Amino acid sequence: MERGILAIVSHPDDETFGCGGTLALHALNGDRASVLCLTCPSPKRRAELAHAAEALGLPKPIIFDEERLTINDDVRKRISDVIVSTRPRAVITHLPFDYHREHRIACEMVKEAVEWAAHTTTYNEPWLIKRLLLMEVNTLIPSPHVLVDISNVIESKFDAIDCYASQLSKFPWGYYREFNMKKAELRGVQAGCRYAEAFMEEPLTQNSPFYETKRTKSLI
Amino acid sequence: MERGILAIVSHPDDETFGCGGTLALHALNGDRASVLCLTCPSPKRRAELAHAAEALGLPKPIIFDEERLTINDDVRKRISDVIVSTRPRAVITHLPFDYHREHRIACEMVKEAVEWAAHTTTYNEPWLIKRLLLMEVNTLIPSPHVLVDISNVIESKFDAIDCYASQLSKFPWGYYREFNMKKAELRGVQAGCRYAEAFMEEPLTQNSPFYETKRTKSLI
Amino acid sequence: MERGILAIVSHPDDETFGCGGTLALHALNGDRASVLCLTCPSPKRRAELAHAAEALGLPKPIIFDEERLTINDDVRKRISDVIVSTRPRAVITHLPFDYHREHRIACEMVKEAVEWAAHTTTYNEPWLIKRLLLMEVNTLIPSPHVLVDISNVIESKFDAIDCYASQLSKFPWGYYREFNMKKAELRGVQAGCRYAEAFMEEPLTQNSPFYETKRTKSLI
Amino acid sequence: MERGILAIVSHPDDETFGCGGTLALHALNGDRASVLCLTCPSPKRRAELAHAAEALGLPKPIIFDEERLTINDDVRKRISDVIVSTRPRAVITHLPFDYHREHRIACEMVKEAVEWAAHTTTYNEPWLIKRLLLMEVNTLIPSPHVLVDISNVIESKFDAIDCYASQLSKFPWGYYREFNMKKAELRGVQAGCRYAEAFMEEPLTQNSPFYETKRTKSLI
Amino acid sequence: MERGILAIVSHPDDETFGCGGTLALHALNGDRASVLCLTCPSPKRRAELAHAAEALGLPKPIIFDEERLTINDDVRKRISDVIVSTRPRAVITHLPFDYHREHRIACEMVKEAVEWAAHTTTYNEPWLIKRLLLMEVNTLIPSPHVLVDISNVIESKFDAIDCYASQLSKFPWGYYREFNMKKAELRGVQAGCRYAEAFMEEPLTQNSPFYETKRTKSLI
Amino acid sequence: MERGILAIVSHPDDETFGCGGTLALHALNGDRASVLCLTCPSPKRRAELAHAAEALGLPKPIIFDEERLTINDDVRKRISDVIVSTRPRAVITHLPFDYHREHRIACEMVKEAVEWAAHTTTYNEPWLIKRLLLMEVNTLIPSPHVLVDISNVIESKFDAIDCYASQLSKFPWGYYREFNMKKAELRGVQAGCRYAEAFMEEPLTQNSPFYETKRTKSLI
Repeated sequence: MERGILAIVSHPDDETFGCGGTLALHALNGDRASVLCLTCPSPKRRAELAHAAEALGLPKPIIFDEERLTINDDVRKRISDVIVSTRPRAVITHLPFDYHREHRIACEMVKEAVEWAAHTTTYNEPWLIKRLLLMEVNTLIPSPHVLVDISNVIESKFDAIDCYASQLSKFPWGYYREFNMKKAELRGVQAGCRYAEAFMEEPLTQNSPFYETKRTKSLI
Repeated sequence: MERGILAIVSHPDDETFGCGGTLALHALNGDRASVLCLTCPSPKRRAELAHAAEALGLPKPIIFDEERLTINDDVRKRISDVIVSTRPRAVITHLPFDYHREHRIACEMVKEAVEWAAHTTTYNEPWLIKRLLLMEVNTLIPSPHVLVDISNVIESKFDAIDCYASQLSKFPWGYYREFNMKKAELRGVQAGCRYAEAFMEEPLTQNSPFYETKRTKSLI
Repeated sequence: MERGILAIVSHPDDETFGCGGTLALHALNGDRASVLCLTCPSPKRRAELAHAAEALGLPKPIIFDEERLTINDDVRKRISDVIVSTRPRAVITHLPFDYHREHRIACEMVKEAVEWAAHTTTYNEPWLIKRLLLMEVNTLIPSPHVLVDISNVIESKFDAIDCYASQLSKFPWGYYREFNMKKAELRGVQAGCRYAEAFMEEPLTQNSPFYETKRTKSLI
Repeated sequence: MERGILAIVSHPDDETFGCGGTLALHALNGDRASVLCLTCPSPKRRAELAHAAEALGLPKPIIFDEERLTINDDVRKRISDVIVSTRPRAVITHLPFDYHREHRIACEMVKEAVEWAAHTTTYNEPWLIKRLLLMEVNTLIPSPHVLVDISNVIESKFDAIDCYASQLSKFPWGYYREFNMKKAELRGVQAGCRYAEAFMEEPLTQNSPFYETKRTKSLI
Repeated sequence: MERGILAIVSHPDDETFGCGGTLALHALNGDRASVLCLTCPSPKRRAELAHAAEALGLPKPIIFDEERLTINDDVRKRISDVIVSTRPRAVITHLPFDYHREHRIACEMVKEAVEWAAHTTTYNEPWLIKRLLLMEVNTLIPSPHVLVDISNVIESKFDAIDCYASQLSKFPWGYYREFNMKKAELRGVQAGCRYAEAFMEEPLTQNSPFYETKRTKSLI
Repeated sequence: MERGILAIVSHPDDETFGCGGTLALHALNGDRASVLCLTCPSPKRRAELAHAAEALGLPKPIIFDEERLTINDDVRKRISDVIVSTRPRAVITHLPFDYHREHRIACEMVKEAVEWAAHTTTYNEPWLIKRLLLMEVNTLIPSPHVLVDISNVIESKFDAIDCYASQLSKFPWGYYREFNMKKAELRGVQAGCRYAEAFMEEPLTQNSPFYETKRTKSLI
């Protein structure tokens, strides 16, 4: 199995702020790292996202043309389709207790899409991811499960941040650069390295007969 | 690292009813599988537990001499000591929503003991387990995270059940055999095999500077 | 008061898998047992549901023509209308922690519809049910409140399952038959009989002045 | 089965403030209504409780001599013993979200005692109650499940309140009389009568093989 | 800063039943007290709301013409607009555990609107309220955080209630008058005064860089 | 009323790591800022705590001689006594979701002690604090309610940290200095200043008749 990782986010810049270093690191390792962005209201922000992805060493992002994110079967199905066609081992998305409603909706829909992507009755070649990870954008994780050392790629992360001129210009004193720098440094101290990104692990449930592989022979 | 798995349970028979097949399977695989039982009121039940462990292919269980299980720093420390000295990759314990209060207490204390066992400031050779799994005894898991195929060792599980004469005799029509058989069959149907045991995965948090290894370089 | 029981489910087959035996048992007892299915995408599945109801000894099911289930005032009102016109003593629906989003939505809307059906200001002849019960389809109940002995009608339940050829054929090795058999056997062991179905009891709240009967004179 | 109802409370006066009317009503109906009080620090308050019980038409209360209520196996066992020996159909106790920690502890221990009282392996003549109800003392129930019309016995309730001179004297302007009067009137308005007491219903779980009766044949 | 208070409610009469006294009290104090009503299906009820506001000493209420309340970005934005243009210090809305779904939706949308109203990037003159308070209509608050003494304005509250002829006539025996009287009396006993209204305090979070003022220099 | 603030913490160093800057700031403002430490196992750590308090400009801390913190009426009463005798406007303690069990216990006991300290029936001169704030030590607050600008006193905070030689020496690479520096910088970015400390606000409930002052006349 080729090694892939997919970040599914609500808005352009979430992928960079929440897991840009982790994506860049995997891209550097030769893994297939990519981004699915669920909304994108304007051509300007689409362009910024494309540049940010490039700065992180990622292919062109997949962008849905939703204006607003709502709980919605059609969007859920399109997310499943992307998971099935890109076949990532790990998916990263938002926290269920994120302060932003559209982030919480993304989390709920991604969890559902992950399940449906694995259904043998829905897809000819279904796909069950191995890990679902939840990232921090503005809302912090109280006690992370995983800390990824992004020291080697911190410059790519900040190059990507710099692509978001439309967002950065809202806070000319440099909020976004500063916040993401300090967040990466704080997580770095916890991780025993220079810079890190923090995640929660969301274990995947086995609820139905729809999977190809359902059992394990060892826990260790 | 040698491969070890440790079940930490409240009472004799919990280990057999909840994860006896999984322990037997790992023993069969040559892994170090073992049991820590936190209470044992009587010599008779200690003897039953010892026989059950034997039937599962496990070494002599470690047994604490508590009469009743309460939240208690001393017991927590003794659990940490066992984790540090046995160095298991995976630990199995009870559900936090188990109907039995002493099972819920075991779950809470094991989670705390797992954390402290990894502290470099508490132990010269601390130990961080890789996985914490929660098992079902009488309370069922609504949506399991992991199903272990125990078809190859189902006879060992029932041999172990048969060691608990003091418990079985309470229900002469065969409750314990029947319940555990049907539970294993139901989980087997879900797992696509003959017999299975179900678990929830409890992700481990990173809360403190006390660990030797705190970061990862890849999520996949 | 004539004795009635109504199952309100998201999709055809939920009523059979979740409470088919209980419905058949009440039908056999001469109670008015019936089914309201909230979605039905295809004529084929409507026909299957009709046959399953027949196998369970039930009248023709009421079927809403929704394609997808969303939180929705119109559907809620139509559920209330059915409750008011059929006047059941007990209603059965899905679990609030069911893995399937459309099951969770059914649970939420049924609870609301039960309340509104009893409003004297909404209906000329409002109806307050006596019990609301929640059933298990694929997600299990950790600690059931009620176990119904369905041993006498188990064949009807399996006859009804066999009506769902479109669903059964997805898993030619017999998943649905096997899963429902083992679930009924496991619950049977817990209930001290051959086959049983498990339910949670959802107590009904008294929130408003809209009821005809609001008080009791005895708790025993 | 003779009809009994038992209130299990943390302190003298809880039974009168929380469910005094309901107990008096059942006593008036000829049911066996009684009180178990889990702590009683002083002879003075024991005497007050005895008088209050008399005012409610109840037999001499059972009083445990605990000074403080803690989670505790011995107390739990003694509660089970009282349930088994008094064989009530309904038990009333405190709310799990009561502001008073000793009320929350009573709730937790009573739930556990109710379970153990029904175990065939613990008692020769085990006893399974039919209903567990939770009452309001100072903390209100947001949406009650049951409202009991106590209009006929309101004077007994206030006679019982008046027995608690040691408590009433703390608030010479008449807090306890006023608060309980207004609470009974408010619940009366909701219940469509003059005075009422409000309760939450706590459904009982079936977790184990220990019961004599485990299944039902009808839900209606 | 001028002193303002704004009640944002789902339906006409919620403002009077939930916080009519508190609004009247602030109006009497010379504060800008006003009402935003999120739905209003009929001209008749609009007229009733206008009269009730007058009785409370409030200006003409703002009324949205929604028929039904759903989670909805457009309504959320219009609520933010009202907050920004009226610049209240305190906002009052419904409880998140209210039995009425449209009340719960109001609570969720108001919380979100409060956040967005304060965003410097959304409004040229954003507005951050100081307090968010949650009121009780039919669902009671178990343990209130704030009790407002409305003894001086109780007549205004009941004059306002009397404006709702369309609602009162549903319960000719006087439910609404009685219920609100007893609720005010009960809360009055708790508050040590004749009549009171009870509230929960909902602390406001600081999640984003969008605020003008983000820090404090003292906690006391 | 003189202005006081009291931090109640589980172990020496919690006060410095969690709210040392905030305490120093209030001391600098001339407020009565002080510390109550609930456990202190060794003379060495008592001395460190005394020095840290001095570095923060605080008076000699109050120290309880508990070895371990458990839920315990005696300790709760002694906390109430300290609140009553020191009469603080604000109290700071630990988070209820802190990873450390003794921190969670401190939070629970402080909440209870705050309530009891205000009871007119327990104390001749009871004391009701105005604010209860919860601080972050190792576990982070996802969405803070309050950010205190500690830029002016950051050196005092680090001087206090340096007093904990016994703790700092466990991590010779400087974990505690680094972690607290980055945490203060990250919160500073969110607060729009150089260094800040973050808190959650815990609204205080009104559950009982025991308070001297129970009502308010204005919400703004």
